Amino acid sequence: MPTSKTIKKFVRKRIPILQWGPKYDSRKLLCDCIAGFTVALTVMPQALAYATLGGLQPQYGLYSAFMGCFVYTVFGSIKDITIGPTALMALMTYQQIVGRNTDYAILLCFLSGVVQLIMSILHLGVLVDFISIPVTVGFTSATSVIIGSSQFASLLGIKMTSNGFYDTMNKLFQNIHLTRFQDTLLGISCIAVLLLLRKLKDVKLNKKGVKPTKQQCCFNYIFWLISTSRNAIVVIICSTIAFMYESRGSGSPFRLTGDVKAGLPEFKLPPFSTMVNNSTKEFPEMLSDLGSSVFLVPIIAVLGNVAIAKAFASGEVIDATQELLTLSLCNIIGSFFSSMPVTGSFSRSAVNHASGVQTPFGGIITGIMVLLALSFLTPYFAYIPKASLGAVVVCAVIFMIEYEVIKPMWRSSKKDLFSAMATFVCCLIIGVEYGILIGVAINIMFLLYPSARPGVHMDKCMTPRGKEYIIITPGNALYFPAMDFIKTSVARAGVSSKHLPVVIDCQFILGADFTAAKGIAALINEFSSRKQPLYFLNARMEVVSVFRGVMSDDFVNFNCKTKLEQTIEEQGNSISEEEERLLAFPSTESCGFKNVELKEISCSSDLDETVHHRHSYTNKSNKF
Amino acid sequence: MPTSKTIKKFVRKRIPILQWGPKYDSRKLLCDCIAGFTVALTVMPQALAYATLGGLQPQYGLYSAFMGCFVYTVFGSIKDITIGPTALMALMTYQQIVGRNTDYAILLCFLSGVVQLIMSILHLGVLVDFISIPVTVGFTSATSVIIGSSQFASLLGIKMTSNGFYDTMNKLFQNIHLTRFQDTLLGISCIAVLLLLRKLKDVKLNKKGVKPTKQQCCFNYIFWLISTSRNAIVVIICSTIAFMYESRGSGSPFRLTGDVKAGLPEFKLPPFSTMVNNSTKEFPEMLSDLGSSVFLVPIIAVLGNVAIAKAFASGEVIDATQELLTLSLCNIIGSFFSSMPVTGSFSRSAVNHASGVQTPFGGIITGIMVLLALSFLTPYFAYIPKASLGAVVVCAVIFMIEYEVIKPMWRSSKKDLFSAMATFVCCLIIGVEYGILIGVAINIMFLLYPSARPGVHMDKCMTPRGKEYIIITPGNALYFPAMDFIKTSVARAGVSSKHLPVVIDCQFILGADFTAAKGIAALINEFSSRKQPLYFLNARMEVVSVFRGVMSDDFVNFNCKTKLEQTIEEQGNSISEEEERLLAFPSTESCGFKNVELKEISCSSDLDETVHHRHSYTNKSNKF
Repeated sequence: MPTSKTIKKFVRKRIPILQWGPKYDSRKLLCDCIAGFTVALTVMPQALAYATLGGLQPQYGLYSAFMGCFVYTVFGSIKDITIGPTALMALMTYQQIVGRNTDYAILLCFLSGVVQLIMSILHLGVLVDFISIPVTVGFTSATSVIIGSSQFASLLGIKMTSNGFYDTMNKLFQNIHLTRFQDTLLGISCIAVLLLLRKLKDVKLNKKGVKPTKQQCCFNYIFWLISTSRNAIVVIICSTIAFMYESRGSGSPFRLTGDVKAGLPEFKLPPFSTMVNNSTKEFPEMLSDLGSSVFLVPIIAVLGNVAIAKAFASGEVIDATQELLTLSLCNIIGSFFSSMPVTGSFSRSAVNHASGVQTPFGGIITGIMVLLALSFLTPYFAYIPKASLGAVVVCAVIFMIEYEVIKPMWRSSKKDLFSAMATFVCCLIIGVEYGILIGVAINIMFLLYPSARPGVHMDKCMTPRGKEYIIITPGNALYFPAMDFIKTSVARAGVSSKHLPVVIDCQFILGADFTAAKGIAALINEFSSRKQPLYFLNARMEVVSVFRGVMSDDFVNFNCKTKLEQTIEEQGNSISEEEERLLAFPSTESCGFKNVELKEISCSSDLDETVHHRHSYTNKSNKF
Repeated sequence: MPTSKTIKKFVRKRIPILQWGPKYDSRKLLCDCIAGFTVALTVMPQALAYATLGGLQPQYGLYSAFMGCFVYTVFGSIKDITIGPTALMALMTYQQIVGRNTDYAILLCFLSGVVQLIMSILHLGVLVDFISIPVTVGFTSATSVIIGSSQFASLLGIKMTSNGFYDTMNKLFQNIHLTRFQDTLLGISCIAVLLLLRKLKDVKLNKKGVKPTKQQCCFNYIFWLISTSRNAIVVIICSTIAFMYESRGSGSPFRLTGDVKAGLPEFKLPPFSTMVNNSTKEFPEMLSDLGSSVFLVPIIAVLGNVAIAKAFASGEVIDATQELLTLSLCNIIGSFFSSMPVTGSFSRSAVNHASGVQTPFGGIITGIMVLLALSFLTPYFAYIPKASLGAVVVCAVIFMIEYEVIKPMWRSSKKDLFSAMATFVCCLIIGVEYGILIGVAINIMFLLYPSARPGVHMDKCMTPRGKEYIIITPGNALYFPAMDFIKTSVARAGVSSKHLPVVIDCQFILGADFTAAKGIAALINEFSSRKQPLYFLNARMEVVSVFRGVMSDDFVNFNCKTKLEQTIEEQGNSISEEEERLLAFPSTESCGFKNVELKEISCSSDLDETVHHRHSYTNKSNKF
């Protein structure tokens, strides 16, 4: 029976606003307002750009940009994260929209939420533990390159749609002659201004180490404010220029975003049927059209969101299940407001973080701002030049390419560098969604390799009374992929040692399975048929019980090396005495090795002796 | 430079006939002839049945049945295995044949061989280590049920084609009213006779323990011979009955196999273009029609073959690369003789084994017999009743259902029983090819679980001079899936221990990666900001180098517990003295913990002391 205390604890865990809400104060409110406002200025142009990237009308970007903020404020566990439309989700939505209509995007949003909800109920959050830093790095870097390159067309004023890095580059080179001078000039200027303004926040009027005066403080703050709201400033100025051209009747020299539908989105059920090319498609047909993306989109969304969360949690462990739950609610509730699939945005979360957000309450401010914009500002969105939107996106993503991680990764683990590179290349060439899965698969293969080919250390030891024996120490748990390898190693050692007793030291064998038990049983039989003793040392209880399940009697485990060596000494004598008789009358029953009476032998002295008498503990392979 | 000796060794390894050939003698020849003949009698009716199962004309079964035998004799490493058409390959071929033509089966055979050749060159034989016994058991049992059920229609005289267990059962119930009395009677009689004849080989005229007389020996041998050639006997008798009916002009009361094309298959290139529905399909189109089966069929063939090899190697380790190579040659060369995809046959290998085969030379006999049958016997194949062929197949597979393994598996490892059951159920419901992949995936998940959630043991220890500290021992390698978990555990222990020094004992940490290094760096930072010492004990060289790649200075490893405890004692004093000063002037540089000068500290005494002073080593979770 759950007590009221556990229920309360559970509710507080699942609704984090109950944790930070009561401690909220006016200082935090101010910080959150500034951050929320800045994020809103960033999200508006981004949302318009990503909606276009996803093959939707621009207003859908804004429809997707507010509900995630509200929901995350209540359920989110990391203050910096901002949920909304992202380039990755837009790219994945685009593939489902091409040749169809907007309803597919909204249904995909709803279904993604449902899949995420199921995942969170099944506590599949543990799966995100399998996304390593190398995969995260490869993924974010490749995404940055893809998003950046997809904006080149806008920057050059070329009108084209494309799908994936290779396609974009290909079409760009084919259409390079369509480059428009004005757009290119505007795009490059915007990038230059944005990069300069980005640097502005590092400008400090006071000298280093000297406390700034009040006036200097004020200027420093203004510089910082201009720097963090640079995206909005650039977009507003460029739009004003375009508006002036248009209002003079001469027409804008730049390609513009075009009409954005005014007004808030309707609250309605996600579309479970739709019209495509004058024929009605019902839910099952839509579902089969969406195909594997129903699983891929939510999983990639979670991976992306967790990768971002990991980046901003600054070493703190994130509650993956909670993030899953929140993301699912953002998508499900969002889909009732015509949202496309949403997830955490890297660039906006970075802006949020840099703007000094204190709690997830910043999301409320952002959401309200987006709603206000939808109500009143849409007529002006039409005048935003595409080139300046492109510049905003490019400047947001170029700093996401994590080349600086290569050096420590090279020094630390070359395998991991390979995983990161493979993820990066596959994301670029095959596609982001497959790249991340391939990266995880490669990582898991590296992880499994020690399970399949564990180090096996061998040594010749001597008992106090001078009996020689072989001790073999497998360096990993004993599960099915390793069994054949271990079996070959032990069998070879047994043959080449010419009937010396063989001891398998199980100190690193932390677990075993049925296949291993069968293999050990085969080994015991093989040794038994050769009349060669095979002992086990220090096997854990759980390993012993797995082995005993297959062979009830034959498995002899010692928990104490002294007892083992005594047995070897006694056994050695009895074998040399009995040897002739045994060879004359072969019978498995009379095999010396099976005569050991104690099946589980421990001694009273400490465990410390287990690594005694071991020499030259260096050879990794099974050579003598 | 490879010496002539290494080349010779390699050639002998890759062409095993060079190993057993020189030692061949007349006694072995006799055994191999008997076994080869018996297998030939089994393969003929099976080949006809499997060709029909695969949607091909019956003669293609025989075309597929001889080349594998010849090739395996030269390259095969396990004496019992017989390569040829199997029910599983037939089922998988059927899916590619439906609505197309035979050329697809032959091309699939060729491409399977090519894929297997590539796999063997890349030494991907290691992949078969990931097929555990539970998966093998689930797979063979499910295959048996599917093959058995697919023969019910033949047994009942119902004419139908089906695909998969569910479809078969469904269609069978729909068409049950079409059951023909004569066929049912024949089928059931055949099964009864086959089962009785199977028992015959256990009949011994001499009493147990008494040496048989020469006459008894002779009868025992005749019984054994009748028993092992029961398939051929039943088929020959039933065909004779049908032939007599037909020759009397009254027509056979049974459904018959129908015309089998006489003559040997042509030697020709595999078909790289074909005619389907009066339109020519070129190679790229055929390839895209075959789709993922180009990879699935060879992989499943290898899995099946290795599963069988594992069953017959009687505990010996099999050379997976050699088996891959042999299988690829069987398929490639076979495809020049109009073969469908082939692999090792479980039922015929069992017959081969039971017939006392001594070397792979038995395959030559089988192959020659099949060629003779194709040349001279085909007119008579037309008279084989389908019901008796069905009975042969059913009686071959019902003994492949491995229910007897359930009990030891339950005792040994319930997880493995779950894997076996899941494989079995998925093979039945979704399909054999997916079932085996799902089984492997489940197995890998169980394998990965300890990597994600390793046991973490914690203890409070005391130095000889009475300083308390916490010692934490992660029970597994430190790779990315475990990092968050370990980090949480250590961080919590650090906080709840109220500034006691924390020692991470790395004795079970056999490896680490970049993600782990980053996590450890974050932990060190966290402890450092709290001025709480964090030490590492007994980290291996390779682990240290991975960690050092990320943090050059901060990582302090001790190879000796005594030195560590001394440091804790000194550190403890210096901290308590400096504590006030540190809190007054916080600076990361002056943190006591970083002042340790020796970064890699070892002592001359033995390693034995590492498990000293540890008490109550039982709590698995991170509670105190």
